[in-house]
Amino acid sequence: MANLGIVIPAAGQGKRMGAGYNKQFLSLLGQPILAHTVRIFEESDFVSEIVIVGAEGDIAVIEEIVTQQRFKKVVAICIGGASRQDSVRAGVRALSSAIQRIVVHDGARPLLTLEVFHRFIEETKEYPAAVMGIPVKDTIKEIDSIGNILATLPRDSLRAVQTPQIFDREKLEEAHNRAASSGYCGTDDASLLEWMGYPVQMAEGMQGNLKITTPEDLLLAEMILENRQRADSRDGSSV
Amino acid sequence: MANLGIVIPAAGQGKRMGAGYNKQFLSLLGQPILAHTVRIFEESDFVSEIVIVGAEGDIAVIEEIVTQQRFKKVVAICIGGASRQDSVRAGVRALSSAIQRIVVHDGARPLLTLEVFHRFIEETKEYPAAVMGIPVKDTIKEIDSIGNILATLPRDSLRAVQTPQIFDREKLEEAHNRAASSGYCGTDDASLLEWMGYPVQMAEGMQGNLKITTPEDLLLAEMILENRQRADSRDGSSV
Repeated sequence: MANLGIVIPAAGQGKRMGAGYNKQFLSLLGQPILAHTVRIFEESDFVSEIVIVGAEGDIAVIEEIVTQQRFKKVVAICIGGASRQDSVRAGVRALSSAIQRIVVHDGARPLLTLEVFHRFIEETKEYPAAVMGIPVKDTIKEIDSIGNILATLPRDSLRAVQTPQIFDREKLEEAHNRAASSGYCGTDDASLLEWMGYPVQMAEGMQGNLKITTPEDLLLAEMILENRQRADSRDGSSV
Repeated sequence: MANLGIVIPAAGQGKRMGAGYNKQFLSLLGQPILAHTVRIFEESDFVSEIVIVGAEGDIAVIEEIVTQQRFKKVVAICIGGASRQDSVRAGVRALSSAIQRIVVHDGARPLLTLEVFHRFIEETKEYPAAVMGIPVKDTIKEIDSIGNILATLPRDSLRAVQTPQIFDREKLEEAHNRAASSGYCGTDDASLLEWMGYPVQMAEGMQGNLKITTPEDLLLAEMILENRQRADSRDGSSV
């Protein structure tokens, strides 16, 4: 278990933030969002290598963050591809051959806790591929191209998918290579394995494991972190 | 068009708010959430009657809100049923027989704007039933009872459903009566019509049309309202 490789796609352009630059460098309680994200894995005893994948123009900023934060497990900072999928594929290639089990986690999800991450890798260790997801709060309906409602989907069987997602390296690489050569584009890494016909397991996700894509998300993330820090100091322990 | 009846289910128990009482009475910028919600329809020229449906123990508080706010279109405050569906059914019965077109809107969605509401009723006037919904941000997967992923759903064809939902009264009452006698329980009012085989149209929803169900939602709602008020005062006009 103690030999996970982490791939962090962080090449998003952050257009929805109105920030004019990559949202993952915005400050969350005084530190870049991406620094919070990388630290989760830096602090985990189960992780031995971390690869960050960024846009070409962002590589220098990412290097600066890694240096400033003194992250020791970051073995590579790669230039991402045209899509998230291409970026993950590039990141996987940068891990050393000793890594046989890979976790993909969005750079924009800084609120995952070490406790939840460890529970996730423990619960999913028997599966070749697994993701985490949370129940869907909204009623979800399926529509056709002109807006007729086709169905109200059964809410109990739906999950809103988050990262981390965990994979046997061999299957993840096979799925990425096959998708790249066929031009297939999935919405997440797990969907590439599903497309190949491989089983993927759903584990319990985390309510506060927010993906920061809008200014509102950033404020909400600050609230959640502040509440967590207050709870920690009350308990006299870190969670 | 100028003769809509509005049914506002407001009987939620707010357990997730940790408030110990109905979340819809919590203050949002100095006024109860429910007061904001009712005011949308009070101010619309297309609305002639409003019915609010509350829990038995909340009726006095709702009456007080209606009196304090001097709402003139609230024709009844009904006691809700065991479920949201029962509550809406009770509310529909309280509208006068002159009302032939009914809008259902959650009491906990105070951020709908008059502009969006009017666009919605204009766009949907030819349809016997319509709802509004927004594109789904998350990847949604379908799982079986033991957590195997069955499918990643095609995101473009999914909508997260909001209220308002609008109906020809005759069809809405027929669907509610039929569901009640069969014991069918839908996740929203539209799903009862879908279950009956009636067509329901999806219209474009509103990003900020939040349903307030957690303390984080309430803070987010305050941020959205404050931003809106700042934008209004910059423009020198109300939106």
